Amino acid sequence: SHSIDLAVIPGDGIGQEVVAQGLKVLAAVLPQDVKLETEEYDFGARRYHATGETLTDADLDSLKKHDAILLGAIGDPSVPSGVLERGFLLKLRFAFDHHVNLRPSKLLPGVATPLAGQPAIDFVVVREGTEGPYTGNGGTIRKGTVHEVATEVSVNTAFGVERVVRDAFARAQARPRKKLTLVHKNNVLTFAGHLWTDTFHKVAAEFPEVTTDYLHVDAATIFLVTDPGRFDVIVTDNLFGDILTDLAAAVSGGIGVAASGNIDPSREFPSMFEPVHGSAPDIAGQGKADPTATVLSVALLLRHLGYETEAARVETAVAADLTERGDSVRTTDEIGDALAARVAS
Amino acid sequence: SHSIDLAVIPGDGIGQEVVAQGLKVLAAVLPQDVKLETEEYDFGARRYHATGETLTDADLDSLKKHDAILLGAIGDPSVPSGVLERGFLLKLRFAFDHHVNLRPSKLLPGVATPLAGQPAIDFVVVREGTEGPYTGNGGTIRKGTVHEVATEVSVNTAFGVERVVRDAFARAQARPRKKLTLVHKNNVLTFAGHLWTDTFHKVAAEFPEVTTDYLHVDAATIFLVTDPGRFDVIVTDNLFGDILTDLAAAVSGGIGVAASGNIDPSREFPSMFEPVHGSAPDIAGQGKADPTATVLSVALLLRHLGYETEAARVETAVAADLTERGDSVRTTDEIGDALAARVAS
Ligand SMILES: CC(C)[C@H](C(=O)O)[C@@H](O)C(=O)O
Ligand SMILES: CC(C)[C@H](C(=O)O)[C@@H](O)C(=O)O
Repeated sequence: SHSIDLAVIPGDGIGQEVVAQGLKVLAAVLPQDVKLETEEYDFGARRYHATGETLTDADLDSLKKHDAILLGAIGDPSVPSGVLERGFLLKLRFAFDHHVNLRPSKLLPGVATPLAGQPAIDFVVVREGTEGPYTGNGGTIRKGTVHEVATEVSVNTAFGVERVVRDAFARAQARPRKKLTLVHKNNVLTFAGHLWTDTFHKVAAEFPEVTTDYLHVDAATIFLVTDPGRFDVIVTDNLFGDILTDLAAAVSGGIGVAASGNIDPSREFPSMFEPVHGSAPDIAGQGKADPTATVLSVALLLRHLGYETEAARVETAVAADLTERGDSVRTTDEIGDALAARVAS
Repeated sequence: SHSIDLAVIPGDGIGQEVVAQGLKVLAAVLPQDVKLETEEYDFGARRYHATGETLTDADLDSLKKHDAILLGAIGDPSVPSGVLERGFLLKLRFAFDHHVNLRPSKLLPGVATPLAGQPAIDFVVVREGTEGPYTGNGGTIRKGTVHEVATEVSVNTAFGVERVVRDAFARAQARPRKKLTLVHKNNVLTFAGHLWTDTFHKVAAEFPEVTTDYLHVDAATIFLVTDPGRFDVIVTDNLFGDILTDLAAAVSGGIGVAASGNIDPSREFPSMFEPVHGSAPDIAGQGKADPTATVLSVALLLRHLGYETEAARVETAVAADLTERGDSVRTTDEIGDALAARVAS
């Protein structure tokens, strides 16, 4: 295709600032003959306050027409916890069947990490995106009384687990180390644990070259700080993936550089690319936000749309920028300009 | 009381070795006039293979008569995942209403940590122990088919949440910094999240001196590696507590020194004290296991039974041993002997 039709959702807080840089780098890296069209959508706290809407059926119809979605961040302290998360972010991931939530972690030389000894870190987490404890299944009885009972149901299906496990095996197969670690808590969550573990073993038979490994989620957090080099590809459920990828981001350069893709590999729906970080209202509008995570999300977007050369160019530019930035303090815009200049040259 | 009647469950793997050291230190620290009686129970993999039993009603009746329980570790690769965990460890925690799972983390000077810069770490996690996704609630339909659905239900009650939150506030109140952080994921798990958050705010009114704070579980893992000093007391649900305390152990001296208490503060049932680590079958029987976590669990046991002076003596001995041990390689027994000598003097 010689055009990209992109839905852009800047969102709340620093979302606006970082998305602007992501688009700047995208425009700079694309070949002349690729036409980039963008349509901006005003989702998030402002629209919620103005209209009470988070994401309507009409919104979904509009979004569905695009090739992909670039999202900044959604969330604001003025909105009760859960409203935008469940009503927008998760609603969109579920509506567009974003079952592969891809979150790479790579610690580059010279990049700050809280870990001693600058360990080698280069792995990717394939987080399931449409099941587990994220389905909104559950409820409350006798709310507000001393007899209240609140439940949350983790729903796991053979269909849902198998497709994400197979995707993770394929990704592991394509990497030099070819290693896949399943993370779960199958000694306690035995129903879901059996399904995940049995599916993992079944699909493993299709990928004889991939080395497999299993860790309980608690043990996985230990290895993420004591021996992150042991990981190549991790596949895990929605909630464990949420937790592990924040920790992974923290040890591999910080949340300011962690990118993610919410992918529907079947391409029935547009996939969505977003930084792992939130809207950071405390620093919004000050030009302090690091747009690197958004720019790396643009690289994932490019790869998803088949622009592998351009994706790699963006990643190389970010790597060079990160290793060379040292203690320099630059604005959001300056970092975006620097990255755009690197990818253009 | 001038006697302690202790149930001892060495368990599997390194459990035997580390419990022996815990008992050695306990005997050494107790005043002459306190009579220590111990009864050993043969739970774990050996008994499971021999009889198919993990923990019977008769076992629970016997255990119930003791003042407290000291546990080494339960678990062996020869037993399918989940059998001993659900059939013994969790069964016991639930049967004896161990709703306060207490897990302190303190990084001592000179003790190895994967974190750069040896940050100050001194906090305690109060993990709920009888609810959440640990209840065994859930199930599987169409097992083994492409239509399998497996669920796990997190059950949260006002009764269960309020008592553990109140316990955590009381512990925060008794500490110099008086700070309590609630960790949950209330933006996604909104049913349970509301109950936890509302209860937290309600109980906070009873403890005006305690500073409160809320973090999503994913963000909490970030702070545990970037700014662990921000934590004083953490209160959280069963599964989040499981994950956070392994990470906490990893950053504050390792799983070899992490102690825990499974406490019924009402004292209707005996409380159980155990190292956070597992049975480590790979190093079992070699005298390589570090008994420190078990010895620190003995300190928690002493404190629970009212022997505050003795508990503090054990903790001081461990602190001195840890800061002075350097790179010395000692056997399990040698570490136990050194600690026993320190507490006796
Ligand atoms: C904001 C929240 C709904 C979201 C999640 O839990 O998935 C975020 O933490 C993430 O990781 O993208
Ligand atoms: C062994 C397992 C059942 C247990 C748990 O998940 O609670 C362990 O990880 C722990 O933290 O004590």
